Amino acid sequence: MDTELLRQLAAPNDTKILLCVVDGLGGMPDPVTRRSELESADIPNLDHLAGDSVCGLTIPVAYGVTPGSGPGHLALFGYDPLKHEVGRGVLEALGIDFDLQPADVAARGNFCTLDAEGRIADRRAGRVATEVNVAICERLRQIELPGVQVFVEPVREHRFVLVLRGEGLDGRLAQTDPEREGVPPLPVRATDPAAQATADLANQFVKQARELIATEPQANGLLLRGFARYPQMPPLPEVTRMRAGAFAVYPMYRGLAKLVGMEVAPGGGTPKSQLDALRARWSDFDFFFYHYKKADTAGEDGNFRAKVEALEEFDALVPHLRELGADVLMVAGDHSTPSQIGGHSWHPVPFLLWSRLGSADQVDAFNEAACRNGSLGTFPAKEVLSLAMAHAGRLMKFGA
Amino acid sequence: MDTELLRQLAAPNDTKILLCVVDGLGGMPDPVTRRSELESADIPNLDHLAGDSVCGLTIPVAYGVTPGSGPGHLALFGYDPLKHEVGRGVLEALGIDFDLQPADVAARGNFCTLDAEGRIADRRAGRVATEVNVAICERLRQIELPGVQVFVEPVREHRFVLVLRGEGLDGRLAQTDPEREGVPPLPVRATDPAAQATADLANQFVKQARELIATEPQANGLLLRGFARYPQMPPLPEVTRMRAGAFAVYPMYRGLAKLVGMEVAPGGGTPKSQLDALRARWSDFDFFFYHYKKADTAGEDGNFRAKVEALEEFDALVPHLRELGADVLMVAGDHSTPSQIGGHSWHPVPFLLWSRLGSADQVDAFNEAACRNGSLGTFPAKEVLSLAMAHAGRLMKFGA
Repeated sequence: MDTELLRQLAAPNDTKILLCVVDGLGGMPDPVTRRSELESADIPNLDHLAGDSVCGLTIPVAYGVTPGSGPGHLALFGYDPLKHEVGRGVLEALGIDFDLQPADVAARGNFCTLDAEGRIADRRAGRVATEVNVAICERLRQIELPGVQVFVEPVREHRFVLVLRGEGLDGRLAQTDPEREGVPPLPVRATDPAAQATADLANQFVKQARELIATEPQANGLLLRGFARYPQMPPLPEVTRMRAGAFAVYPMYRGLAKLVGMEVAPGGGTPKSQLDALRARWSDFDFFFYHYKKADTAGEDGNFRAKVEALEEFDALVPHLRELGADVLMVAGDHSTPSQIGGHSWHPVPFLLWSRLGSADQVDAFNEAACRNGSLGTFPAKEVLSLAMAHAGRLMKFGA
Repeated sequence: MDTELLRQLAAPNDTKILLCVVDGLGGMPDPVTRRSELESADIPNLDHLAGDSVCGLTIPVAYGVTPGSGPGHLALFGYDPLKHEVGRGVLEALGIDFDLQPADVAARGNFCTLDAEGRIADRRAGRVATEVNVAICERLRQIELPGVQVFVEPVREHRFVLVLRGEGLDGRLAQTDPEREGVPPLPVRATDPAAQATADLANQFVKQARELIATEPQANGLLLRGFARYPQMPPLPEVTRMRAGAFAVYPMYRGLAKLVGMEVAPGGGTPKSQLDALRARWSDFDFFFYHYKKADTAGEDGNFRAKVEALEEFDALVPHLRELGADVLMVAGDHSTPSQIGGHSWHPVPFLLWSRLGSADQVDAFNEAACRNGSLGTFPAKEVLSLAMAHAGRLMKFGA
């Protein structure tokens, strides 16, 4: 349901909802065994939980759409990812745990190599060493722009994040990366007249930066893309009337939770330590987002066996997750990451929801094929939150 | 499909469609037997019909949304219930068989008890006896307002319906019920400037009513909520090019049918007598809405056994329904009413459609689990009507 309807129907209750996101959960069959990662894994706890739950497959964004982490999570948080876009710059800032503020404009930067005529010779500056990147970013922080604060944060290799902070900034700017070599970088151009002042500031930044790195052997130029303001999302706690807490090892996922207004617990540690942190704060929240990363990492690496092991590691956490005693317990994925593909994919993602109000479901295994026969069918991931709230007695009747 | 596309594709034919709505059809498994009401009932006729039909599960409004009777029925009549809302006041008027007109504004009223300072002491006036309510409503009918007719109709206990009839009335008024005690009722306030004149009239009504009931021991005040105008819906007969007749024992369902422009047969009697009435008018209509109420009532009462019996009673009608010889015969529910919950719920609802054009379907029982495996899958209830029209040869090809 859309955010406005959710806001209208949401009612307080003392029930608790636990959403476990296994990043990159879904997979594809191994061509030899014809069994997917989930089908190959020994996951007795998940299988048993599926037997007690209602199951289905979620479509993260739309048929055929391979989602990034942003849309994949926003959908599970109840937001239509086609309506609420998170810009690349914002996502990059969240990914390095940068404390982005609502009025900030962020961009993803690449250092590049320019030739004597100022044309791009290498769009990635030979994937310059991260230490070099760190030193350059340090130097760029001396840049001053009128009326705004400038943050330059290194990521890895040639990548950095630029954040402008001040009043009245506007993220509607086109990228300076022409996406080919042999031509000069483009100037920053406003795609909406209201963003002209911000475009001017960004061009000043580029000019000063070019001067400061002109003598660098590799990283003597820079390209900016994915300019974006912090998206204006109706906060989840306000819309759903639930206090919401996020527990994740990695910064990107804490950042996405922060975007929708969740309270974010300190990151780092292990899946187990995050689970302990969640348990310690059980009385502080109504809605809990627990993120488990390793399945995605293994899938991205194209490592079938590692993904199987990651799923088995998650399975071992399931009894502890059940012991928390949530009224609604869900295991979902933000998207599939089949090892066969070595990256995110559009394939529907296994999903289970346990509650006392789940009707019978003849599914007794947790994998792609079994969930397809679940009572939830194949459905949009953005419906997950309202479904959970219904099972938690947190939605009023619609209409009389 | 949406109403405009339906209008565009609808073509006349001499086929007949019979939609049987078993109110509150879907249920949940009994925790001991793990069988739902439908699975526990002896319903050989429905099971046999399912074997000859295409089956599926309908989602009345959206995932997780528990519908009231209004949205549940509008969806089955082909209207998107999120686009066509029926206000509480209108529904309440329909529920007492009040002959509501398109320009009327209706509100649901509660008599309440006010203390000496005019603050609400009891929002329901101690659930005053219906006879007292009837007498008070009689007295309130002497109220005169400039340019409009005033109707005050008792419901049960402390509830009544207020209808204003006249030119240019507007239902965009906020409720006067502050939803708590110890504070005075709110004045009627226009939520849109265009409704100010109607707000003034409603406030005059409240003032005069307060004087007329000031000496009542319990019901010395009143609260108004759910102000609404008759919704402006494109009439089903016009959109679908079908003459449509409604057959229902209870007024609410005849009222909902009237809202969408169906011709409504006299109410009352029994499911059997309504079926006889339907048979007697077989040549007068193309589309027939037949409503069976008892399954919902039993579910609302939390009475599993009574719901099983209601379903069995409906099952005994099925051979008679089949004998009518409709080209398309459907058995649907406006929503689920699991006895386990004792109220409406969001759970998908079993559905079957019999026609000569139904493709094979391996479902040979009519219940939640069996219908899940039907060829229609889990789909929105608002698609039921267009599906039926397709099977009845009443929809043209889309595009060349």
